[in-house]
Amino acid sequence: MSQNSTPAVLLDLDGTLVDSVFQHVLAWGEALHEAGYDVPLWRIHQGIGMGSDRIVPWLVGGHVDDASELSDAHKRRFLERADTLRPTRGARNLLDDLDTRGVPFLIATSAGAETRAALLDALGRDDLPTADNDDVDSSKPAPDLLLSACAALGVEPQNATLVGDSPWDAEAARRVRVRAIAVRCGGHGEELLLSHGAMSVVADPAELIGRL
Amino acid sequence: MSQNSTPAVLLDLDGTLVDSVFQHVLAWGEALHEAGYDVPLWRIHQGIGMGSDRIVPWLVGGHVDDASELSDAHKRRFLERADTLRPTRGARNLLDDLDTRGVPFLIATSAGAETRAALLDALGRDDLPTADNDDVDSSKPAPDLLLSACAALGVEPQNATLVGDSPWDAEAARRVRVRAIAVRCGGHGEELLLSHGAMSVVADPAELIGRL
Repeated sequence: MSQNSTPAVLLDLDGTLVDSVFQHVLAWGEALHEAGYDVPLWRIHQGIGMGSDRIVPWLVGGHVDDASELSDAHKRRFLERADTLRPTRGARNLLDDLDTRGVPFLIATSAGAETRAALLDALGRDDLPTADNDDVDSSKPAPDLLLSACAALGVEPQNATLVGDSPWDAEAARRVRVRAIAVRCGGHGEELLLSHGAMSVVADPAELIGRL
Repeated sequence: MSQNSTPAVLLDLDGTLVDSVFQHVLAWGEALHEAGYDVPLWRIHQGIGMGSDRIVPWLVGGHVDDASELSDAHKRRFLERADTLRPTRGARNLLDDLDTRGVPFLIATSAGAETRAALLDALGRDDLPTADNDDVDSSKPAPDLLLSACAALGVEPQNATLVGDSPWDAEAARRVRVRAIAVRCGGHGEELLLSHGAMSVVADPAELIGRL
């Protein structure tokens, strides 16, 4: 088997390995309200999974001058809740399973450094290989991060599987023929995930042990 | 038209008129974690809308001795977040619309007195007619509260319409042939709401103005 046909796994972090989506929703809700934008929480939930550069214009319906202040306020309010973060069901066992079976994998997250550190801390695994999103031009649902992760692993996109919880993960994967498996533990419905390009939907990482 | 054929509207409060579901999710998550139960937040979200007597056994998978302590801890943690509660889009205008058009309505909520007061305060309407849930034996998805509200309004259930955001509202309504209209602003997917018995699904109360 050549290096390029080796299968590999890309793992989203927020909502997929760590139960963090509802905290993100309230953190964005508070940050937006403080800045004078009242956005319904269910709409914020639908936007989680996009990069923070994209979610703000998507939620407020256009360009905003204070996007980076908003993003900072969200980060601060999210990190205040870091003690409530827990791994999703089966997340740690899935990582052990991939290690044991020698399946190459990378964490593919748009989260910034501080948020990523808090998530990995909640997961109890600060040793995980993580795709570098610093040189990525465009965040999910753009596929740039997935392509960069595939390149780092030395796999062709069509041999990679992304596990993610949001419609934006599925959409990013579809654009570059990465297979997307969606987990429901980020709170999205099965139909929504399938309609955005997920090949299959499971409850949480526990259902994927031994199957990736 | 006899009194019994007059149409009437029953309005759920949490998640329907007030954007409160995500706060409930985190409040339950923290209360359960403190008591030693780790329940994924997306599962808690799916349970919101049941009475608090029902959600605890549903979430932990059986009877628990400390259910009332859990319920108190949830209430306390929810009320700590009361300053983040806002009306859902169109909620206040829908109430004005019903008033103006003389449509009889009642708030039908399983929320206890303190939570209800916080929700009505967020809505800026402490004068709303509310179904009395103190004599109701069994909470949603049991239809008892809806039957008691219909009786208080003097309408037959088949002439009443319930507006609610959760699958449990729709299910309670279906059991007694109350027409259920679901709003998506509690964060549930359209398919889930329809599969539990909603006759139609709209985004939020704004879409119902002039239509009830």
